Amino acid sequence: MKKGVVLLSGGLDSATVVAMAKDQGYEIHALTVIYGQRHDVEIEASRRVAAQLGVASHRFVSVDLGQIGGSALTAEIDVPKGRDESTMESEIPVTYVPARNTIMLSIALGLAEVLEAEAIFAGMNAVDYSGYPDCRPEYVDAFARMAALATKAGVEGNPVTIITPLMNLRKADIIREGIRLGVDYSLTHSCYDPVEGRACGECDACLIRIRAFSELGMTDPALA
Amino acid sequence: MKKGVVLLSGGLDSATVVAMAKDQGYEIHALTVIYGQRHDVEIEASRRVAAQLGVASHRFVSVDLGQIGGSALTAEIDVPKGRDESTMESEIPVTYVPARNTIMLSIALGLAEVLEAEAIFAGMNAVDYSGYPDCRPEYVDAFARMAALATKAGVEGNPVTIITPLMNLRKADIIREGIRLGVDYSLTHSCYDPVEGRACGECDACLIRIRAFSELGMTDPALA
Repeated sequence: MKKGVVLLSGGLDSATVVAMAKDQGYEIHALTVIYGQRHDVEIEASRRVAAQLGVASHRFVSVDLGQIGGSALTAEIDVPKGRDESTMESEIPVTYVPARNTIMLSIALGLAEVLEAEAIFAGMNAVDYSGYPDCRPEYVDAFARMAALATKAGVEGNPVTIITPLMNLRKADIIREGIRLGVDYSLTHSCYDPVEGRACGECDACLIRIRAFSELGMTDPALA
Repeated sequence: MKKGVVLLSGGLDSATVVAMAKDQGYEIHALTVIYGQRHDVEIEASRRVAAQLGVASHRFVSVDLGQIGGSALTAEIDVPKGRDESTMESEIPVTYVPARNTIMLSIALGLAEVLEAEAIFAGMNAVDYSGYPDCRPEYVDAFARMAALATKAGVEGNPVTIITPLMNLRKADIIREGIRLGVDYSLTHSCYDPVEGRACGECDACLIRIRAFSELGMTDPALA
């Protein structure tokens, strides 16, 4: 069975990616990269999602990015609340973690090398967060070219493939596909600023989810 | 003053890189990435080197790669001792940490983004460790192209430069240049398997150093 390493944060997007990778016939090796402050809630959500969807293995790697700073997710900066969509789209938010996708994909590359996995799956999306340079297809392609040169497998002619199945999907379309594949979104966690382990309903991540579920005539089950 | 992020392990190579980057007129922001088991000795050596050479800042980022495994440096595998040079060169050693350079450069990229640094310096060397795919110039070039697409600075036309000044130098030439620039190699630490904080003198890293100092008619001051 072909192996796929899936970056699993426990959020809506990455849960959907696990389901899509399984649907493509991969044996799933989930990797949760933990950085900054959001430890407990994320670990719990990623465990629930992995258990619900069924994975061959699930690993946790901590990276202490607090020393690097520059983000509301790793430093002491307030997470913005109640922003409208045009503000979200026009600026790189303070919740942006510098080089986050590159760091997470790099750790996934290490795991893929050890497991001799054929693919790395990640939930980058160019639609909802157009402000992030490291969410674009040209970035992902450049990472794949670098990875092919970085590893023994690549040098031997079997480079790992980087698959980003959500890249061009709108959030509502991601949810529709996930529901079709049996994802239980009540188990997922996307909030940037949870209060006692529950989603705040007001940060960018919560608002994007709420709107997408509402577009489908549903209530976000993580907020129910 | 132009800023440079320097990956500093506390070993011979990275200490030399700090001195070379300073010599090129950069303000040095040292970054020590800590993975696997070698915590204390490495932290101590990198602190000593940073203090001796003078840096503007020094940060430590821990990455818990133990869950990924696949290396004598992060898992419970014996470090080989007393190997001859042809064996070292012909195989990827068990001390190889999967995707290590990619992970370290990615974290450096995050720091460079926050500091708005112009360059990242790293001690990759294609001569002594020809078995590592991620020590070749074509790998470093591919990383730089990826980094240019990953970051705001890159998108705005000011991509960070990745400088690997040791790439084509033999170990003895690295040491000669370091001595010229005032590096105190007694402070550095390269050993894969230190005993009570001291270099073992028998692992690949120790043997390569010993031979290079001997070629210059010197004794490795870290073993003195």
